[in-house]
Amino acid sequence: MENKLRQILDHCIDTGSEKDLAALAHVLEGFQNKIDNDYTQYIDGLLHMERKIDKEKKTCEITVPLNAVWNNSLDIVHGGVTATLLDTTMGTVVNAILPEGYVAVTNQLNIHYIAPGIGDTLHCKAEIIHHGSKTMIIEGEIYRSDGKKIAHATGTFFIIQKLA
Amino acid sequence: MENKLRQILDHCIDTGSEKDLAALAHVLEGFQNKIDNDYTQYIDGLLHMERKIDKEKKTCEITVPLNAVWNNSLDIVHGGVTATLLDTTMGTVVNAILPEGYVAVTNQLNIHYIAPGIGDTLHCKAEIIHHGSKTMIIEGEIYRSDGKKIAHATGTFFIIQKLA
Amino acid sequence: MENKLRQILDHCIDTGSEKDLAALAHVLEGFQNKIDNDYTQYIDGLLHMERKIDKEKKTCEITVPLNAVWNNSLDIVHGGVTATLLDTTMGTVVNAILPEGYVAVTNQLNIHYIAPGIGDTLHCKAEIIHHGSKTMIIEGEIYRSDGKKIAHATGTFFIIQKLA
Amino acid sequence: MENKLRQILDHCIDTGSEKDLAALAHVLEGFQNKIDNDYTQYIDGLLHMERKIDKEKKTCEITVPLNAVWNNSLDIVHGGVTATLLDTTMGTVVNAILPEGYVAVTNQLNIHYIAPGIGDTLHCKAEIIHHGSKTMIIEGEIYRSDGKKIAHATGTFFIIQKLA
Repeated sequence: MENKLRQILDHCIDTGSEKDLAALAHVLEGFQNKIDNDYTQYIDGLLHMERKIDKEKKTCEITVPLNAVWNNSLDIVHGGVTATLLDTTMGTVVNAILPEGYVAVTNQLNIHYIAPGIGDTLHCKAEIIHHGSKTMIIEGEIYRSDGKKIAHATGTFFIIQKLA
Repeated sequence: MENKLRQILDHCIDTGSEKDLAALAHVLEGFQNKIDNDYTQYIDGLLHMERKIDKEKKTCEITVPLNAVWNNSLDIVHGGVTATLLDTTMGTVVNAILPEGYVAVTNQLNIHYIAPGIGDTLHCKAEIIHHGSKTMIIEGEIYRSDGKKIAHATGTFFIIQKLA
Repeated sequence: MENKLRQILDHCIDTGSEKDLAALAHVLEGFQNKIDNDYTQYIDGLLHMERKIDKEKKTCEITVPLNAVWNNSLDIVHGGVTATLLDTTMGTVVNAILPEGYVAVTNQLNIHYIAPGIGDTLHCKAEIIHHGSKTMIIEGEIYRSDGKKIAHATGTFFIIQKLA
Repeated sequence: MENKLRQILDHCIDTGSEKDLAALAHVLEGFQNKIDNDYTQYIDGLLHMERKIDKEKKTCEITVPLNAVWNNSLDIVHGGVTATLLDTTMGTVVNAILPEGYVAVTNQLNIHYIAPGIGDTLHCKAEIIHHGSKTMIIEGEIYRSDGKKIAHATGTFFIIQKLA
């Protein structure tokens, strides 16, 4: 496996543009984050997520740096990356307040895309709209580094028992 | 940059588990895909997307292999990855039928998550619900390799003129 | 109560315009429908709903005549009336196929408004996207009498046990 | 027309139950409201809407009394009535702040149903999430008289020029 990995990297270095290699560095550093910090999801590392949970206020905030690797063909953040940031932040709120042995899964997610994702970072905040016994409804918003809101979402999360 | 990249890879190889390195290989191969095939989005490469556009029927289908790197902490496909696959497939339909000089951006996306994303591949199909002059409404569905539907989405796409 | 009803009607007749009285006739006829046909919901009567359930195909179709009473200030069908027609048709599909003792409630409803509701009638069709053990996802569409689609919706319905 | 109206009312009085006639009184009083107050929509009258617009804060609040006529077969408020109240309150915010000559139409509406609509009244509040040049995103919430939130919605409204 080690040789295979080194060969692919060499191939990328030989054939990729300067932009490609900068993007690749971002991805590799993200992967290293995951390993070093023992994140439970690779995606948290890949996106360089910095997470702040406030259990009392029942909120979560996640900040990610932007990089060309997450852009779409219009060179703005891909809508799926916006969705990933929202789903993660919103799901984190739910999981942070659930009692031991319970876990949340996304049942439905509705996203309004408001402005292009550009700039240095995206900052996502999530909070609870409704806390039921079987479902929670969560609201999430993403802001750019210039303060502009780029997305607003609401989602339904199902509360299920973890398998032993 | 080359040295930096090699150092990070060495660090990952030294400190990562077998599972980590398999996941890393998937990501690096995906990155190489992007470079080799000159994809317009890194994400298309990273997710190993195989795309089939039918301009006559106005549909798009994209298949991606699953890999632990795209899973959430429950070890099923992250909802954001599902969203990325839907948004890409749905946006591709719109862009495939727009005349030269026009491009589509996602305005709103509503996703129903139906079943866990597990197995070998995910297969996404998208088709047009409404083709207006300023907006299009697109429907997308994702199926697992065992045939089970895992997600259903509808989205509004805005049609805008490309900047010259 | 009888006198009160007759007094209000007299007041409406005395002070209403011709348009008002035509609208009122539509509402009163709808109310009479409810009584004569022993509908379970007043709304079914008020909207003059004609319902066709196909238990085998698991679909429901409802047609309603249009009338100024259901219009908004732009003189097109109010978005809430469109929603009422969708929710009823979609919920009817679910309830038609549930076993005795179970009932469905709307958990979430997402509606795309596509074209103005004008003309003689609206025709709504609903079918199942996903039939789970605890939830169903239903799709609904509304067409005008000239064949134009005016709305598309998806909704999550929760399956619950009827109270004895 | 007058005779026809009186005949239908007589028929309802002769054949309807006490519950039917109380429901009919609510509808007729609502209709009279529309005529007396010269509302622009019949629905505002029928639902006995009491509206409060705060142009500075850019919010709108509407309260409606509950009545069996708006219930579904489970004897709770019909989801379409909830949607009507949300759509009206949310649209009123948009129209209240648009300059002369412009008007808003609902493009998309996503509703989370949280708790059964029961009790004396429903109180809906709407405020702006995003104010763009061509679209607005509005948030709406409905509370029962006992303070419980029963629904949360977000919607996209298109801003269009009024026809001369």
